[in-house]
Amino acid sequence: MNLEVKIVEVGPRDGLQNETRSLSLADKERLVAGLVDAGLTEIEAGSFVSPKAVPQMADSGPLLERLPRPAGVRYRALVPNRRGMEAALAAKVDEVAIFASASETFSQRNINCSIAESFARFAPIMEMAGAEGLPVRGYLSCAFGCPYEGAVDIRAVASVTAMLLEAGCYEVAVSDTIGIGTPGDVRRMLADLLTDVPAAKIALHLHDTRGQALANVLAGLDAGVTVFDSSVGGLGGCPYAPGATGNLATEELVFMLEGLGVRTGIDIHKLAVAGEGISRALGRRTSSKVAAAMRAAGEIGRRADTVSSRTAGPADPVGMPAMSDLPS
Amino acid sequence: MNLEVKIVEVGPRDGLQNETRSLSLADKERLVAGLVDAGLTEIEAGSFVSPKAVPQMADSGPLLERLPRPAGVRYRALVPNRRGMEAALAAKVDEVAIFASASETFSQRNINCSIAESFARFAPIMEMAGAEGLPVRGYLSCAFGCPYEGAVDIRAVASVTAMLLEAGCYEVAVSDTIGIGTPGDVRRMLADLLTDVPAAKIALHLHDTRGQALANVLAGLDAGVTVFDSSVGGLGGCPYAPGATGNLATEELVFMLEGLGVRTGIDIHKLAVAGEGISRALGRRTSSKVAAAMRAAGEIGRRADTVSSRTAGPADPVGMPAMSDLPS
Repeated sequence: MNLEVKIVEVGPRDGLQNETRSLSLADKERLVAGLVDAGLTEIEAGSFVSPKAVPQMADSGPLLERLPRPAGVRYRALVPNRRGMEAALAAKVDEVAIFASASETFSQRNINCSIAESFARFAPIMEMAGAEGLPVRGYLSCAFGCPYEGAVDIRAVASVTAMLLEAGCYEVAVSDTIGIGTPGDVRRMLADLLTDVPAAKIALHLHDTRGQALANVLAGLDAGVTVFDSSVGGLGGCPYAPGATGNLATEELVFMLEGLGVRTGIDIHKLAVAGEGISRALGRRTSSKVAAAMRAAGEIGRRADTVSSRTAGPADPVGMPAMSDLPS
Repeated sequence: MNLEVKIVEVGPRDGLQNETRSLSLADKERLVAGLVDAGLTEIEAGSFVSPKAVPQMADSGPLLERLPRPAGVRYRALVPNRRGMEAALAAKVDEVAIFASASETFSQRNINCSIAESFARFAPIMEMAGAEGLPVRGYLSCAFGCPYEGAVDIRAVASVTAMLLEAGCYEVAVSDTIGIGTPGDVRRMLADLLTDVPAAKIALHLHDTRGQALANVLAGLDAGVTVFDSSVGGLGGCPYAPGATGNLATEELVFMLEGLGVRTGIDIHKLAVAGEGISRALGRRTSSKVAAAMRAAGEIGRRADTVSSRTAGPADPVGMPAMSDLPS
């Protein structure tokens, strides 16, 4: 597949915002530095929302100040309002994101206002971003279903997407907030959405709550979408708690893309190590199956210099030794 | 998608054969009865291989004797040789499966003979099956990669598939034994394989070692394959051990198929409950994300009469309550 695909790493923001265990600034700094070292260039590193609502993101300012700033790496942050935008500008982010919902009830419960009212709050953000020449991304929450309303109308997705683009967003990340969509939903939605909007303006932000995220990416790719969000280590959920709602693991996404012939430029070993590191800080194992398989095969640690577990030495045993005496 | 898709449930065989914790006959009986009750009709219930090599399958005969035999349900078992076939016939299975490998080294290490020699062992099986009018399925191990050889030649897959069909198998389950394939591999392989073999003779048997299995199913569906193997609860791996190598979870497969408009006839609630039951017997949680999400949403237990979590009452909250005050 001769495609350019952009991976937006949202682990440091979407992956961590929900965590109950508090992380040190050093933990987060180590995570982002590891992601940069692995080759990720688009990293959502923080969120300038109320620290009362999302305590895990309270140190986004100090974090962004401490991060390395190599050429080609862009840090992003979520901003809900003018005050958040001021903080984001002070932290010298490269891009901001606003968030609207495809569901009225979710909008009310999440940000205490209607969808229409949320756009009034975006106006000063867009104005400030315009003045600074900062790109603004739009998130569209609950595009595949809402925890309160259930099914979400495909036309609501199209209409709020259009509103975000008209407001000045360069791209809308259509988000499966509750991880309920299937490739069938992705196909139906994109068939509708892409009649009005070029695929280049759409990203997919998928949670793996029901294990569908990677298949949904494939359906998105087939429909022409080339920007996908993911979280290293599948951050955002806990494999030990029922109902884990993590993002799609970046390792799984990279592994699939490389297998599809898409060159991601990402060192999957370093990526897996970064995911293991932050998972350890959170007191658990990585939720990435790719990372777990690499660890089991001894690929992590001893070959950190190679680019991909696919391209590097296929002669290595990559399965479970115990499988060797079992059929199929 | 106006498709007929056949799901072959391999949890009781492929899912359990690798387990170190020994299960009682009652545990296995409960599992299969639960699968039947959930609507699965094609169930690989056992394996007549050496009990020394695979102790978990030593009671396949007694298990098959105790199982309910409702109309429309077909039990399958793996047979390696004439002796296994005799035991399978005595247990009144509805179908048997033989297994060959696309990799010479895997064949040697797994069944102590070359690929060519393995076909000599199949001859009496095929003869006995023919005499009894019993369908024989062929498994092709290591079709996407080998734990010893690494990459496996696509032409080896085509050639051993052809040998299995020529030997009399009605279908070949092309198997990603080590769970290393991506949708790119599935597409490349099927593009090659289906030039010689009709899609109706090919099944895909995918392990989810690197989280690619469901995306691989989607690629397979798109290429015309309509038979897929899976294990309830993602049996076959352990989420708590590094390098889990479970099969694709049947719950995830059913959820995706229903979302694609394929009517599976399977009660996903009962399926998830069966997966939780056997996982509990194995001392762990289910590896199915669909099942975990249903449990978290309180969908299991109180609505066991409904057919699918997608079609049943979308007004139920299906996400994590904690997500409600967090963006996207």
